[in-house]
Amino acid sequence: MKIHILGCGSATPSLKHMPSCQVVEHNTHLYMIDCGEGAQLGMRKAGLKFSRLCCIFISHLHGDHVLGLPGLLSTLALHDFNGTVHVYMQQKGIDVIKACLDTFSHEPQYTLVFHPIGIEQTVIYEDDALTVETFPMPHTTPAVGFIFREKQKPRPLRGDMLEYYNVPIRERAAIKEGADFVDADGKVIPNKWLTTDPAPARSYAYASDTMKSQAVTRAVSGVDTLFHEATYADDKASVARDRGHSTARQAGQCAAAANVGKLVIGHFSKQYAADESVLLNQAREEFANTTLAREGLTFDA
Amino acid sequence: MKIHILGCGSATPSLKHMPSCQVVEHNTHLYMIDCGEGAQLGMRKAGLKFSRLCCIFISHLHGDHVLGLPGLLSTLALHDFNGTVHVYMQQKGIDVIKACLDTFSHEPQYTLVFHPIGIEQTVIYEDDALTVETFPMPHTTPAVGFIFREKQKPRPLRGDMLEYYNVPIRERAAIKEGADFVDADGKVIPNKWLTTDPAPARSYAYASDTMKSQAVTRAVSGVDTLFHEATYADDKASVARDRGHSTARQAGQCAAAANVGKLVIGHFSKQYAADESVLLNQAREEFANTTLAREGLTFDA
Repeated sequence: MKIHILGCGSATPSLKHMPSCQVVEHNTHLYMIDCGEGAQLGMRKAGLKFSRLCCIFISHLHGDHVLGLPGLLSTLALHDFNGTVHVYMQQKGIDVIKACLDTFSHEPQYTLVFHPIGIEQTVIYEDDALTVETFPMPHTTPAVGFIFREKQKPRPLRGDMLEYYNVPIRERAAIKEGADFVDADGKVIPNKWLTTDPAPARSYAYASDTMKSQAVTRAVSGVDTLFHEATYADDKASVARDRGHSTARQAGQCAAAANVGKLVIGHFSKQYAADESVLLNQAREEFANTTLAREGLTFDA
Repeated sequence: MKIHILGCGSATPSLKHMPSCQVVEHNTHLYMIDCGEGAQLGMRKAGLKFSRLCCIFISHLHGDHVLGLPGLLSTLALHDFNGTVHVYMQQKGIDVIKACLDTFSHEPQYTLVFHPIGIEQTVIYEDDALTVETFPMPHTTPAVGFIFREKQKPRPLRGDMLEYYNVPIRERAAIKEGADFVDADGKVIPNKWLTTDPAPARSYAYASDTMKSQAVTRAVSGVDTLFHEATYADDKASVARDRGHSTARQAGQCAAAANVGKLVIGHFSKQYAADESVLLNQAREEFANTTLAREGLTFDA
């Protein structure tokens, strides 16, 4: 599970940052989280093919998280693309995006499916490889974060041992799932002789936009990687609270209390554009394993 | 009257071109023509202050000419800007842009006025310095081009001569407009002794998107500078016709027949991204004084 940061600024596109957008790459699929203006160009810059895009998840209905959708979905209609794209967002936003497409876009050749979401903690998406769940975030408008959880991967088979024990092909699916093997003589060959341990299933949580919240901390508890907004530094803690945002220190505190593996901070106010190290330093005082997001950054969950 | 090209690609933003957007700079005012996705970032790159923006004119309701509007108008709402912005576009588009702003934007501090336009040839805007008129263009959806015409400027006064003839201050406004002066003895001092010739009023026409059309040629007849779309080269003349677009050669033919001063071509298909000289060369075979648009290009009308 690899994450691509396409935009990590707040409020408006600038010469330093694009508005919120990231892509979770998993196997052949791309899952977009938020879609600020310029998201489609961000995909081109990152070398992410439109044809791999399967889902778009929108955290809340502020423009800097949404306004790339009409352009991206219109562009897909102009490409030789006949797959399916699922968009998860609040119903009020779906209605407006549909109106945009009806009025400004060409008839799509692909299938576009809108899924209205609420703000409760629930699994909203599941496929063979992962689940996506929402959790509520306190902001100035109804908002949810997302947690991507890989499913437990099948156990890699050991070819040499399968051959040695003459394991028939029809048995292999069960062995990948952990079953032991019983040979023709009734002898039990333990699964651990036939397989190796798979890479552990990873988890990634996205929390933006949100103010400091114990509920968010509980929701993201124990994830491998947390992206948390860090709009302001300590000097603007009261502004952050008034505007439903967090400081970098609060992001670090959340990561520490939630005992996550690593923290990536973003959604930076433009007032720190000249030097964002103050944000990084204040977050690191709370949680050492913190990275500053930037457009083009990729990392494993 | 200075024109800034912010986007001159067709259909979708790419690593080579942004979608349609330009700004006409005149005195202190900025007048935007079309507003493809990324227009607000284009203004930042060009160093054009949002606070100078007074009008936005939208030629037609295809996404690559419109989808920067929600973002740009939302961004204005986040700035310390309390002026007025007038948006001229077809009613159907106004309804959707308003829905976008209602749902995705903060409450603006500035005044936003929408003006529905039709597709007939008519003056839709006038201020002290210029007029803007629409003219119909044949495309796959109702579309208009725009002609910006500077008003005749006042005649610059000659300070030395005003002093010599003791011209009172109250007479000067009339003299700037061309009046002669009658002195205390009843002697007529001809205007040409008291003033110099002003710079000629300039005109600029924008024709995109349009297929080849004699009506367009008549509408833009005699303008100083013509921007004309040139989506395809000769090899795609039938595609151009089918999609309501022009070839570069047709743009050159329009400029020649309309007897304009100079031609700027744009709205290039991405298939020429590696080398657009074929478009320039084919246009120049019809009209020598042709320039290829590019993002960041500025020119006087």
